[in-house]
Amino acid sequence: MRGFSDRMGALRESPTRRIDAIRERLKRENRDIIVLSAGQPSIPPPPEIRAMMAEELAKESMDLYAYTPSQGIIELREAVAEDLKRLGSLDVKPDDIVITAGGQEAMFATLMTILNPGDEVILMDPTYFGYKPIIEYFGGKIKRLRLSMDDGFRINVESLKELVSDKTKAVIVVTPDNPTGSIIDEETAKAITDLAKDKDFWIISDEAYRTLIYEGNHVYMYKYAPDNVISLNTFSKDPGIPGWRLGFIYGPREVISRVKLAGEEMTYCPPSFAQRFVAVYLRSQVRLKHIRYVVEQYRAKRDAAVNAIKASLPEARFTVPKGSMFIFVDLANYIDDGEKFAEYAMEKYSVAIVPGSYFSEQYRAAVRVSFVWESTNRLVEGIRRLAEAAKAYRTR
Amino acid sequence: MRGFSDRMGALRESPTRRIDAIRERLKRENRDIIVLSAGQPSIPPPPEIRAMMAEELAKESMDLYAYTPSQGIIELREAVAEDLKRLGSLDVKPDDIVITAGGQEAMFATLMTILNPGDEVILMDPTYFGYKPIIEYFGGKIKRLRLSMDDGFRINVESLKELVSDKTKAVIVVTPDNPTGSIIDEETAKAITDLAKDKDFWIISDEAYRTLIYEGNHVYMYKYAPDNVISLNTFSKDPGIPGWRLGFIYGPREVISRVKLAGEEMTYCPPSFAQRFVAVYLRSQVRLKHIRYVVEQYRAKRDAAVNAIKASLPEARFTVPKGSMFIFVDLANYIDDGEKFAEYAMEKYSVAIVPGSYFSEQYRAAVRVSFVWESTNRLVEGIRRLAEAAKAYRTR
Repeated sequence: MRGFSDRMGALRESPTRRIDAIRERLKRENRDIIVLSAGQPSIPPPPEIRAMMAEELAKESMDLYAYTPSQGIIELREAVAEDLKRLGSLDVKPDDIVITAGGQEAMFATLMTILNPGDEVILMDPTYFGYKPIIEYFGGKIKRLRLSMDDGFRINVESLKELVSDKTKAVIVVTPDNPTGSIIDEETAKAITDLAKDKDFWIISDEAYRTLIYEGNHVYMYKYAPDNVISLNTFSKDPGIPGWRLGFIYGPREVISRVKLAGEEMTYCPPSFAQRFVAVYLRSQVRLKHIRYVVEQYRAKRDAAVNAIKASLPEARFTVPKGSMFIFVDLANYIDDGEKFAEYAMEKYSVAIVPGSYFSEQYRAAVRVSFVWESTNRLVEGIRRLAEAAKAYRTR
Repeated sequence: MRGFSDRMGALRESPTRRIDAIRERLKRENRDIIVLSAGQPSIPPPPEIRAMMAEELAKESMDLYAYTPSQGIIELREAVAEDLKRLGSLDVKPDDIVITAGGQEAMFATLMTILNPGDEVILMDPTYFGYKPIIEYFGGKIKRLRLSMDDGFRINVESLKELVSDKTKAVIVVTPDNPTGSIIDEETAKAITDLAKDKDFWIISDEAYRTLIYEGNHVYMYKYAPDNVISLNTFSKDPGIPGWRLGFIYGPREVISRVKLAGEEMTYCPPSFAQRFVAVYLRSQVRLKHIRYVVEQYRAKRDAAVNAIKASLPEARFTVPKGSMFIFVDLANYIDDGEKFAEYAMEKYSVAIVPGSYFSEQYRAAVRVSFVWESTNRLVEGIRRLAEAAKAYRTR
């Protein structure tokens, strides 16, 4: 009998893809949409690295095109180890690193590797929406720990402890967080890792935005519990190659070896062109210069966005993000439903944002504003349109 | 409790990866290994296309780096549709095509999409080893249809019919086949698709080597049963970017839309750089010229390999492959166990081949010889070493 896997029911189109689809339609109608919904950088990778790869393309050799080891080329794993040492003072061996086809494969392969049906996974609320469908696909049960804007979305470890049961397989901590831009502090990280060791669960530490921090420092949870922490990373945000699909995981060797097997079945090996590109980038002189430049640019945009929101949406509530690309804006004083509002704002005011309900069960009248994709002028204009839309929505 | 998914037990290291590992070790010992084990091309993509992409890398824009639609960029899906029209006279709409992160993701996502535990999948014996672990991971049961070298590994449809039950979810047909290089004929294709319609099962038609044909023509099974045939394809062999991870599936829209969702969870989108590269390639003037050149080169190598085997291994049995990159050589008159022999040949005679047992339960004293990776001189020398090894192995 033809037909389909029953488990596919857990998978639905990614919410941002739905936003993208409406945006595409309006674009075809020649509408100029201001995009505050994108979760990707606006600055391409350093020209020096691109020029080097252009030279590689001229060579008559299969080196650039051949399959790579499924764990990733050793040059890249060594470069990642050096980078983790330089930026985080971590001692991670190249064998404890597996390269993946982007952060998405890192997430999927990790959950594929650890989850059995019925396992509980604790997610923060709000947090990145990408984990939910994968957890549900593998039969996991989601418990949510509600964080509050009032204390900057700080994780209360006592409340976390109450959610942990003997079925808890993993706790997922995204820091810097998408959508709130909050970053975990050392004390909280230490307390969570202590709990993980005590109760014997995995911590999935999603570090996608670890180099995009505007105030404070990234906390590498791995250093507190190297046997419990599985760290997921991506090169989509730094050096800025989201479409090329490259990321990596570091963590306990028993996890890495299994993720490697999973990756081998899913994609055989990570994309080789991107692997060589990033290996050169991480070891180049321009690496730190580039990320300093990017952080400077994005910080200025963040500040412009914060000022614009304060000026035009005085009743909006938000915390200034310390990292990431996003401001999570609670519009409960203007609107009742972020999802309906997002469509309204796009259709009527040509501005794209992502509804807060995609990230949260509690902040249903919030929206995620990305401040990096558009130019500063368009970003500010986008927020002005958003404010107009919110006021019009309130008095519809 | 930390720990792992029970289902991960189905996944083991890919057999060719094991061969690669021994080869890597010997390489570190400075041994010159002749590689007759590789399943990838030796000719890089056309220089014209590489030069165009090098120019793209110079541009200060995110176009080349941004996420793409998860189904793949429309330019590439249109180019694939045109190519299927030109080469196979098929009418496939761009919406019935999904781009994947290589043939491997095409295989995984397809089986993920259709299989429920207990479903039966019929595999030929011999055939490509990549399907078995994925089927088992999803709880499928494998039934094998034994093909015989005596009639050129032709599929006997009466025997296939006997294997089909009401639990048959899919039949997998690799044509041109890896490892045998046999290609399906129109009559057999018609009979199998008739059976699929009658008994209502999927046909997974693996067309990885469809443009690498030395005699005869590729049969597009899709044209006989567009509602039953899911066609898996890769750009690893043509234009020759195995490491870049790009492939595609065409088939019934209800399959394509689900595979798209699966791909979105696994890798979010196919690698964008490779997508743009192949879109340019498929529509360029050099496309047909390049593939004609590649086929000419590989045909000459195939002929050299055939002659060398006949000369140095007179008791070997094989059929001359009509397509693909491989000759499947039955060495039962020399050796008893292809797996032990492969290690012996590598360790003692510095020649790498893949044991037949990875592809077959019946041809356990066979080996797969790839004729495309090495130069003709080294290919012939490799077969000479193989013959020496076989004779020495027999009289050990």
